[in-house]
Amino acid sequence: MTPAIFSYSTLKAFTEAVFLKMGCSHTHATMATEALLAADLRGIDSHGVARLSGYIRLWEAGRINATPSIRVVHQTPSTAVLDGDGGLGLVVAQEAMQIAIEKARQVGSGWVSVQNSNHFGIAGYHAMLALQHDMIGMAMTNASPLVAPTFSTDKMLGTNPIAVAAPAGKQPPFVADLATTTAANGKLEILQRKQQDTPTGWVQDKEGASSTDAHILKKGGSLLPLGSDREHGSHKGYALGAVVDLFSALLSGANYAPWVPPFPAYVPMPARQPGKGIGHFLGALRIDAFRSAEEFKESMDDWIGGFRKAAPTDDQQKVLVPGDPEREAFEQRMALGIPLEEVVVKDLQGVASQFSLTL
Amino acid sequence: MTPAIFSYSTLKAFTEAVFLKMGCSHTHATMATEALLAADLRGIDSHGVARLSGYIRLWEAGRINATPSIRVVHQTPSTAVLDGDGGLGLVVAQEAMQIAIEKARQVGSGWVSVQNSNHFGIAGYHAMLALQHDMIGMAMTNASPLVAPTFSTDKMLGTNPIAVAAPAGKQPPFVADLATTTAANGKLEILQRKQQDTPTGWVQDKEGASSTDAHILKKGGSLLPLGSDREHGSHKGYALGAVVDLFSALLSGANYAPWVPPFPAYVPMPARQPGKGIGHFLGALRIDAFRSAEEFKESMDDWIGGFRKAAPTDDQQKVLVPGDPEREAFEQRMALGIPLEEVVVKDLQGVASQFSLTL
Repeated sequence: MTPAIFSYSTLKAFTEAVFLKMGCSHTHATMATEALLAADLRGIDSHGVARLSGYIRLWEAGRINATPSIRVVHQTPSTAVLDGDGGLGLVVAQEAMQIAIEKARQVGSGWVSVQNSNHFGIAGYHAMLALQHDMIGMAMTNASPLVAPTFSTDKMLGTNPIAVAAPAGKQPPFVADLATTTAANGKLEILQRKQQDTPTGWVQDKEGASSTDAHILKKGGSLLPLGSDREHGSHKGYALGAVVDLFSALLSGANYAPWVPPFPAYVPMPARQPGKGIGHFLGALRIDAFRSAEEFKESMDDWIGGFRKAAPTDDQQKVLVPGDPEREAFEQRMALGIPLEEVVVKDLQGVASQFSLTL
Repeated sequence: MTPAIFSYSTLKAFTEAVFLKMGCSHTHATMATEALLAADLRGIDSHGVARLSGYIRLWEAGRINATPSIRVVHQTPSTAVLDGDGGLGLVVAQEAMQIAIEKARQVGSGWVSVQNSNHFGIAGYHAMLALQHDMIGMAMTNASPLVAPTFSTDKMLGTNPIAVAAPAGKQPPFVADLATTTAANGKLEILQRKQQDTPTGWVQDKEGASSTDAHILKKGGSLLPLGSDREHGSHKGYALGAVVDLFSALLSGANYAPWVPPFPAYVPMPARQPGKGIGHFLGALRIDAFRSAEEFKESMDDWIGGFRKAAPTDDQQKVLVPGDPEREAFEQRMALGIPLEEVVVKDLQGVASQFSLTL
């Protein structure tokens, strides 16, 4: 089936209207929409409007608070803990990043650990908020447990992404945004819809044996940490996912490890809740707290240029710099529109009908 | 061959004497020795006394300054750039970490990017310096280019490790310390000595084809980023290695990417030097700048306990927490001594003879 094409402005108006119907303030509705659609624009289709109905189900279940009182629980000149009051992570993480940026402006860096939040969309969007201030931005979040640590069959961690955005001069910014697993869950969903198997090394079955079944998570299986198995460094992917959990939840007082609340509203909350909601970690480093931003950007241009000139393994595929594929998707989709799969369009039509809106 | 066993105190006295003969101050000789031997104690044999002669060769070549004037180039309340003056990274990184810790004491966090340094031993040692202050420690460094980015045949990055250490209460601390490659270079050296092949996914040949030749780096081949190939997430390992380079060198003004000075003194310096020496990045986050250290440690104990109780894939291998294998090695080697391979002992005997010392 050919996907339907929607302009950014159409999807933006629609999504904002939905968040307003949920009771969000105008400011929050706009913030949430921009964070959510950044995924669609950047080609990360699993995290964009395809998830809008998921947020609505969580709101209906009382797990998302559309009118949160987001507040600083504790702070120092360079750090803070933020309580998201059960709000949309899409909004809460941006508030946290603004605090990190302001602290970086004052004392060189700012680090905000967030409790009592929800799914925040793509990590890269929040990290990139620092770029316009000539700062390096970082964003992490924990997530529903889908990943087994090395040598285990238990799902103990989420796909726990790490994003780092750094400005350049003439070159576009460096934007790394990666799940700490071999493959993100969204990649499995794509294969499920295509009725295809996964490559070896993405998932294991409930006994811990290698599997290529894209539906294995529903059968007790798990995603594997980046590295896939011990021989190929899965203990490193596991350690990185663990670091994200520590920074996002242990520092803030959010839920951690297998006790992170699930994204699908039909999955019951874990019986045990050692903290509040899910956790994020946002950071900003002011470039000129280290060296002149101009010098840094010249070096970044030189660094990026070096990688662009690196010899490719074959003529068909150039060497990429982190952020290249997403930026190319962004430029294309801003110009030509955002393709949505039929199943997503149907889902959005359901949302439209629920709120008496038109798509 | 059975390895010879040396006590920690024997190796410590010898190594200190060597650094003193190089002209290091007593303080620096002790600092360098403790950082270097931390690798032997923690079972990371590639980074301990096996490298002592390598540091001496660099000193003889005028690439290591035994009496550096380490100075802060620029700073804000939470950040600094440190010039290592060509000193031993083993010492310079510790000085940087002390500055980070002091800044964290003052304003909640401290971040120090270092230029003009040399190989700093194991990243984990420097990160762990924060633990006694109830802080989370972080350490990164760039290194000689051995790693090809995804889709490239050029060696553009080092194995660029990331270490994060976080205190717990009754449980031992969490210590993640990982090269951002599928396998570190030290693992290849072990296979070279055993005349064994590598597993698939560790290295590629000069054309970018998969290889299992443990000697392939000398034949134009490269180490692969964590993830091994695009399908298994090598672009993520590449992005993480790149982030380490940005933090360590682009923020400090050190050399970066393929222009990082090589560790072996017989390898000529790169013709181009866009910065000074090699770069590190050290960070400290004060726990109670977020929440009470006591609460944090209770949560860490609960977190670690959860992973220790996770179901194993088989009865022979328990689920580990980052830092477990190195701590077990530490306890064993402190009690029973440090085994050194014959080739390392011979190398140290050469060092002893050069400096009129006895091992």
